[in-house]
Amino acid sequence: QEVAKLLELKAQIGDDGAKKFVLKTPKGTRDYSPQQMAIREGVFDTIISCFKRHGAETIDTPVFELKETLTGKYGEDSKLIYDLKDQGGEILSLRYDLTVPFARYLAMNKIQNIKRYHIAKVYRRDNPAMTKGRFREFYQCDFDIAGLYDPMLPDAECLKIVAEILQELNLGEFVIKVNHRKILDGMFGACGVPEEKFRSICSAVDKLDKTFWDDVRTEMVDEKGLEPSSADLIGTYVKQSGGTELIDMLLQDERLSKSKDAKEGLEQMKLLLRYCELYGIKDKVLFDLSLARGLDYYTGVIYEAILKGFTNTPSAAGAGEEQLGVGSVAGGGRYDNLVGMFDAKGKNVPCVGVSIGVERVFSIIEAKYQASQIKSRTTQTEVYVVSAQKNLHEDRMKLCAELWDANIKAEHSCKKSPKPLTQFQYCEDMQIPLAIIIGESELQNNVVTMRNVSSREEKEVPRDKMVEEIKKTLRDLQTQSK
Amino acid sequence: QEVAKLLELKAQIGDDGAKKFVLKTPKGTRDYSPQQMAIREGVFDTIISCFKRHGAETIDTPVFELKETLTGKYGEDSKLIYDLKDQGGEILSLRYDLTVPFARYLAMNKIQNIKRYHIAKVYRRDNPAMTKGRFREFYQCDFDIAGLYDPMLPDAECLKIVAEILQELNLGEFVIKVNHRKILDGMFGACGVPEEKFRSICSAVDKLDKTFWDDVRTEMVDEKGLEPSSADLIGTYVKQSGGTELIDMLLQDERLSKSKDAKEGLEQMKLLLRYCELYGIKDKVLFDLSLARGLDYYTGVIYEAILKGFTNTPSAAGAGEEQLGVGSVAGGGRYDNLVGMFDAKGKNVPCVGVSIGVERVFSIIEAKYQASQIKSRTTQTEVYVVSAQKNLHEDRMKLCAELWDANIKAEHSCKKSPKPLTQFQYCEDMQIPLAIIIGESELQNNVVTMRNVSSREEKEVPRDKMVEEIKKTLRDLQTQSK
Repeated sequence: QEVAKLLELKAQIGDDGAKKFVLKTPKGTRDYSPQQMAIREGVFDTIISCFKRHGAETIDTPVFELKETLTGKYGEDSKLIYDLKDQGGEILSLRYDLTVPFARYLAMNKIQNIKRYHIAKVYRRDNPAMTKGRFREFYQCDFDIAGLYDPMLPDAECLKIVAEILQELNLGEFVIKVNHRKILDGMFGACGVPEEKFRSICSAVDKLDKTFWDDVRTEMVDEKGLEPSSADLIGTYVKQSGGTELIDMLLQDERLSKSKDAKEGLEQMKLLLRYCELYGIKDKVLFDLSLARGLDYYTGVIYEAILKGFTNTPSAAGAGEEQLGVGSVAGGGRYDNLVGMFDAKGKNVPCVGVSIGVERVFSIIEAKYQASQIKSRTTQTEVYVVSAQKNLHEDRMKLCAELWDANIKAEHSCKKSPKPLTQFQYCEDMQIPLAIIIGESELQNNVVTMRNVSSREEKEVPRDKMVEEIKKTLRDLQTQSK
Repeated sequence: QEVAKLLELKAQIGDDGAKKFVLKTPKGTRDYSPQQMAIREGVFDTIISCFKRHGAETIDTPVFELKETLTGKYGEDSKLIYDLKDQGGEILSLRYDLTVPFARYLAMNKIQNIKRYHIAKVYRRDNPAMTKGRFREFYQCDFDIAGLYDPMLPDAECLKIVAEILQELNLGEFVIKVNHRKILDGMFGACGVPEEKFRSICSAVDKLDKTFWDDVRTEMVDEKGLEPSSADLIGTYVKQSGGTELIDMLLQDERLSKSKDAKEGLEQMKLLLRYCELYGIKDKVLFDLSLARGLDYYTGVIYEAILKGFTNTPSAAGAGEEQLGVGSVAGGGRYDNLVGMFDAKGKNVPCVGVSIGVERVFSIIEAKYQASQIKSRTTQTEVYVVSAQKNLHEDRMKLCAELWDANIKAEHSCKKSPKPLTQFQYCEDMQIPLAIIIGESELQNNVVTMRNVSSREEKEVPRDKMVEEIKKTLRDLQTQSK
């Protein structure tokens, strides 16, 4: 036994010696296997169908932009941008999100209104936490409405879209928290926060979904130098959430009612909730004063959708660790001033949008599959052509060509004389519904044997009726499975 | 007039002064507009359907790889690889094609056989020729069969796939030229080319689709130091193309028949043509001794599909300018030794694959649309909800929610009181087939007016029959348009 261990060790060393390089994907990235791709395609189909149901067009932009296009848009997070090496020519960076390229696209093409979606990968040199579904290369699914419209009409449609998608993805109960930049700013002002501290206090509030209030208060007072009395006042507001009745109460609030911003924000919020009722999603939407969202460019309504089955209990350790709370699967808001940053004359195009956190969704659905031990199909093959004896590959080829030309999804072995058992095993492994079997006798009698793979029932079909018979059987199987 | 010109000039200067930066995409890249995306989606649908019809799975890999993964795979072209800036951490490069990442994926996951497709963008710091459809960021659509199978069976399926796709994309007549690395090497040997010059002479032959033979001969003799007599001998072979009868003739050829490589290659080519016949694509395939293809990693069959409507007349100026000939829309071949470069023990997985030149296809189809002045739809909206009077936005919202929840693709204006004419104009511009009109009288009578946008026919429908009636009408319209 000792010797065996030594030999094993020796084999390992030999192995390492021969290896010329590390075989891996870059840190924070991954390959998608066919299994994962099948899940990914299913999720994208659901999301894209919803976007199209709402009349959206789609665009695409390059994976990299001129560095200066991204400069000054992400605040502190700019350090997470991937730069390309200067190989002589332009200075380039990988895109950090899809919103800034969208704003650049609108300004460059002088587009005043568009309803568009964009699904693509973005890049952040963040500390990866891949088990939590956080990567350095990840997908964003963005839907945005650009254009000068009446208040809250496009904003409400974004919420409707989030609700439809989360419903269809079947991820369990969810809530869409909403708030308003002007309500937050008005509240900060009313609580005695100096204006230059609005953004930094706002980013402290943003941590409330993962951290206890006490820690947030400490950050405000000790780190950010806020008056304790102001912090305490903020504390009384950010604990509140509700519906129209809360808005009405806050509109009567002594402090808030003095703030023009707060009043305007609250009135808009009331209208938004009214529209959500008309869209039939009132029970999914919760006005929550603690929702802050980090990004600087938001100017109006902000929102975030949270899966109730995954809700986080705040913990000190988790503070600042995640961009999104654990159960958070979508977020967005209104950004009316971003396009103007790209326009020579500063001309703005008001925008509101939402981003679906698909990586999180992938992780959840993958875990579901693993738990259920159901293997999702990775191909769509409908028919496998089996030869019962040796050297019938030419007959299989002719038969397959006939099926392909009739738009039937078909496969056969790339070996001349595969064993019948191997071929049937393949059908079962890949969950292919039908097998067409040919042997000497079938060829002589000008027939094929059609086999239902799961029931193992077989029947003989005349060769010239084969395509027709297959199509009929596939239709029947599909009806049954519904 | 003089003054007007001066004012215009002044305005331009003022404009430039205000512009803080250049508003553009990086050199060699472009945005895709909704129109272009609609075309792109159509092309991808056709291609993916074909891949799935042949039982392919799909995978995805990161947009960048460790630099060392790409090193030593592309020969001279390595200088075209985009590197990322060293920001502390791994040294990374953007992928140059999808084949090397595929080989890395197979080796890393110890996969012995797979039939997969991969559609993604790749990056080359080439001189862009965007009018010719050549970009620095562009799509590749790859289909590959990995695994140890019987000769020419997977290779023939790749050709079948190319033929199906080009047929369905409806790009006119095409031919798939085929050749074999071993036939080329055997021919070079038989013509007295020293073995160390095989690759460089091969890359000279590769230019024959864009250059006259005389210029290729000059390159061989003057630049690459080949004996003039050898060059002339090569010239007699590379002028030939044909079918099985040519192979039989070459098998009898005094010089070639002495080469083991040439004989093996010719026998395999004969088998491939036989299989193409069984797959019903014999008339699309042409054995062409001048087909060389640059990439070093090919080890067996090579092929390239050419649109006859776009065939190039060779010109001295065009030499070396293009990676693909003008009419070339697909290419590929067998590469049996690439995976082994990533395996610690050098274990190989034989592979054969094809890459569809979709950027070329996009350009051709875009040009077709422009010439025909037909505007392709960029949305799939089926119903536009129109309000006939002011302030009916809440009724529109309720109605739209009903349509969305019934999975009908619907839109309405994001303005509270849009003009009826504007709404109808939008329907016509966007080619939306149906409008649902509501006004005071409709609301009172609990009906809606359904309008066929192109015929302008209208009919009244009870509100509670609306969804049903819309679905029926959409089905009827679809049947008519077929």
